[in-house]
Amino acid sequence: MDVNVLGIIAGFLTSISMIPQLIKVIREKNVEDISWVMILVLICGLSLWVWYGIIQKELPIILSNAFAVLVNITLLTCFMIYRKK
Amino acid sequence: MDVNVLGIIAGFLTSISMIPQLIKVIREKNVEDISWVMILVLICGLSLWVWYGIIQKELPIILSNAFAVLVNITLLTCFMIYRKK
Repeated sequence: MDVNVLGIIAGFLTSISMIPQLIKVIREKNVEDISWVMILVLICGLSLWVWYGIIQKELPIILSNAFAVLVNITLLTCFMIYRKK
Repeated sequence: MDVNVLGIIAGFLTSISMIPQLIKVIREKNVEDISWVMILVLICGLSLWVWYGIIQKELPIILSNAFAVLVNITLLTCFMIYRKK
């Protein structure tokens, strides 16, 4: 398999993986069992992957991680809104 | 910054990101708000990243994603154990 196609499929899967979680959170308005530390560490790590992708000039890494950063920022925002005070 | 160091830090953060979630699940034995679709899609995507890393011969990608696969398989196992029937 072409390595770029492989990277795009891999990136597509890892970037969309948080979407079912996001939908579940928006639908159920419940975030009690979710770890905000996970989301925060993930956002930091994914942002560094974007940087890595830019240096290595690897488009699948840049696109998939940039998208995943956006999804996780949305998830973190939902977390802030729905968490129990 | 050296690109390998950057990749290692990025990979370290994304691989450890699920650990706080795993600890929370093990401690609280509650997985109601977590999406198993997320975990499953993530495992598929991360496995493809390992494959991508092997072809590109990029150690940070291989190691971090392989570790993340293990963490997520553990999380999925916990999900199966703790979910309400």
